Amino acid sequence: MTLETPPGYEAFTPDTLGSYLAAIPTVAERLGGGPPLWQVSEVGDGNLNLVFIVDGPAGSVVVKQALPYVRLVGESWPLPLERAFFEHAALVEHGRHAPERLPKVYHFDQTKALIVMEHLSPHIILRKGLIAGTVYPHLAEHVAQLLAETLFKTSDLHLAAAEKKQRMKFFCDNTELCRITEELIFTDPYREAELNRHTSPQLDALALQFREDTPLKCAAQELKLRFLGDAQALIHGDLHTGSLMVTANDTRAIDPEFAFYGPMGFDIGAVLGNLLLAYFSQDGHEARAGERDGYRQWILEQIEAIWEGFEARFRGLWNEAPRGDGVVAGLFTAPTDGPALAAFKDRYMHRLLGDSLRFGGMKMIRRIFGLAHVEDLESIADPELRAACEKRALGLARELVLFGAQVTSVRDVAPAARFHRLR
Amino acid sequence: MTLETPPGYEAFTPDTLGSYLAAIPTVAERLGGGPPLWQVSEVGDGNLNLVFIVDGPAGSVVVKQALPYVRLVGESWPLPLERAFFEHAALVEHGRHAPERLPKVYHFDQTKALIVMEHLSPHIILRKGLIAGTVYPHLAEHVAQLLAETLFKTSDLHLAAAEKKQRMKFFCDNTELCRITEELIFTDPYREAELNRHTSPQLDALALQFREDTPLKCAAQELKLRFLGDAQALIHGDLHTGSLMVTANDTRAIDPEFAFYGPMGFDIGAVLGNLLLAYFSQDGHEARAGERDGYRQWILEQIEAIWEGFEARFRGLWNEAPRGDGVVAGLFTAPTDGPALAAFKDRYMHRLLGDSLRFGGMKMIRRIFGLAHVEDLESIADPELRAACEKRALGLARELVLFGAQVTSVRDVAPAARFHRLR
Repeated sequence: MTLETPPGYEAFTPDTLGSYLAAIPTVAERLGGGPPLWQVSEVGDGNLNLVFIVDGPAGSVVVKQALPYVRLVGESWPLPLERAFFEHAALVEHGRHAPERLPKVYHFDQTKALIVMEHLSPHIILRKGLIAGTVYPHLAEHVAQLLAETLFKTSDLHLAAAEKKQRMKFFCDNTELCRITEELIFTDPYREAELNRHTSPQLDALALQFREDTPLKCAAQELKLRFLGDAQALIHGDLHTGSLMVTANDTRAIDPEFAFYGPMGFDIGAVLGNLLLAYFSQDGHEARAGERDGYRQWILEQIEAIWEGFEARFRGLWNEAPRGDGVVAGLFTAPTDGPALAAFKDRYMHRLLGDSLRFGGMKMIRRIFGLAHVEDLESIADPELRAACEKRALGLARELVLFGAQVTSVRDVAPAARFHRLR
Repeated sequence: MTLETPPGYEAFTPDTLGSYLAAIPTVAERLGGGPPLWQVSEVGDGNLNLVFIVDGPAGSVVVKQALPYVRLVGESWPLPLERAFFEHAALVEHGRHAPERLPKVYHFDQTKALIVMEHLSPHIILRKGLIAGTVYPHLAEHVAQLLAETLFKTSDLHLAAAEKKQRMKFFCDNTELCRITEELIFTDPYREAELNRHTSPQLDALALQFREDTPLKCAAQELKLRFLGDAQALIHGDLHTGSLMVTANDTRAIDPEFAFYGPMGFDIGAVLGNLLLAYFSQDGHEARAGERDGYRQWILEQIEAIWEGFEARFRGLWNEAPRGDGVVAGLFTAPTDGPALAAFKDRYMHRLLGDSLRFGGMKMIRRIFGLAHVEDLESIADPELRAACEKRALGLARELVLFGAQVTSVRDVAPAARFHRLR
């Protein structure tokens, strides 16, 4: 390692991790036996970190350790180790509100930039399940729960102002990770940038078109200003389908190292946008045309079910526990207050849907024209077919970014997706 | 003093201040001579602090010291001394951007919660000038400059994201002062609250009506959410006409102890709303009906000139120095980018005008139904006449809060003000 790291930091290997874990009693006990009986394997396939699975006679754990650079790019792009600090804080804070939807945390070591947490098994990454065409009957319900609980309960609708400002202050330091989002999502896809890539030459003309699409660029900057300044709730910050681990009966959100106080729609949009990418990529995963028709339909239903489940639960929390300083419940106690307050909540939810669709569209575009792509599309070997899927996705994404605020119902999304797939 | 204060803090009196100042070389030198030759008088007429003027043979200074409670209410409402810390930080930060529009700072003592600053003389508080019917030919130009420079240059349109987050983080701790605003402006006027007062019985029915005006209460809460979460720029936080010191040729903003990262429209609205209160109170300061017609017209012209001057300067800064991370200038270099980018800026300014009018309306209402009133109206001895002025102001204020976002030009405000005065 040539990059300078703080004293005490070392990047572990499968060979060196065991003796470190043996010195943490709660972890050693959970694994059982001792290091010689532990199997350690590095499984990180993300862009930024080392991830180890450690199996012992009594149980297993996952160890996630930050590297001082962006793994996807290399040591030329240094990245502060403190992100493990913010990831841990977000796991704890979100875990308080939706404990069943996050991995349990067993140990945190700030110097080593390392978190020991629950080994989710037999969970797989949702993205892989979507590529395989697997139906998850509880997915929408779980994601709706995750989003509603974590976003509502870290917002001004639930917290006292002073409490919220303290959390907001804490996450103000997670600027380096935010900067990645600012550049890779809100800026680079709309200009020539060294790190950009796309399916070429098939998408060359369209990439140029996007760089010259002034209304789209303006919309991207409008959303960037929201990302920079709208401290609505503690958001995960990177909630794509690679940050969700699933089984038939369980769903967990991992990797909140991008967490900070930002617009709620950024998290919701990450889920919806990545589901739409999964939808448009199905054509690349069919053995014969139409084979995945039913699955495509299922994905679109999940988008509706996630939003509608989220909205119902969010409104439920707002109606039942309106204790935040943001909207003082004591102002609305007369019977005549009911309808106007309900209309106010309708407007709030409508705006949030618009935000979610717009940010969702941004997340789709960056996966096709930016640095980091998604396996849903990348795994389509035939570049013609992949480019065709990508063009359809871009058609909807652009529409969402520009006009998402005018969409009045999440039920309008599926017809739009079908239209862009078939036109 | 029965309230506990930190070690080292003492509230000064005119008798004890001199020897303290004598130990600060830069201040002692500025005053000249020594304590026996200095005249100290306490002149604070605000709600929260001690303010001393110290005159020496060579010059004079103002000393502002925070008290550990709200002066207007008494020791029953404690208030953290740290607000002097935030006031000083805001004076420094805003002073960097608009040095001619703020008092110079000579000394800051965190333990004593005390700022020694320029003695503005022969300045008077703008509010008093407005009550007297004095015309200030440079007022609009100066206020426009103040607002444009301080708001633009602390926003994401000018700052790098990491830099802005650090400033934002710093001011996250100024929660107690923010809480005063949250309660006294956004909440209490719309409910029965012990501290509320109004011209009674003349305004009793209207006060009740406002507490039952559900759309208005919803709008107030919508704006409160913006105040709590929209970290657009470092705002003064209390920029009413009592925070502006004026002469015929000079204008300065003082008292930014409420400063934090919030919506720009809150500052602009504070100025506009307080000018509108001055407008509606003129009827109470005329020796004969119509005597102040010209002055009324002048006030309305100031509202237009302040907004238009602000907008021109703000747009100028944006066009000339677009170096912030919020809207990346490098994205808009093609000739075809011009019109759409201009339309984007138009939308930005339109939204800001709407915010300013809405927050301005909120500031007007709180001065009539809340705890802290304004001398413009309070000094009208005849309660019937005062109530009449207040009712007219409330008519416009309610309209601004509810429909300010739909106003397309600041030039629509004056006719609305005239209408509400005469109806």
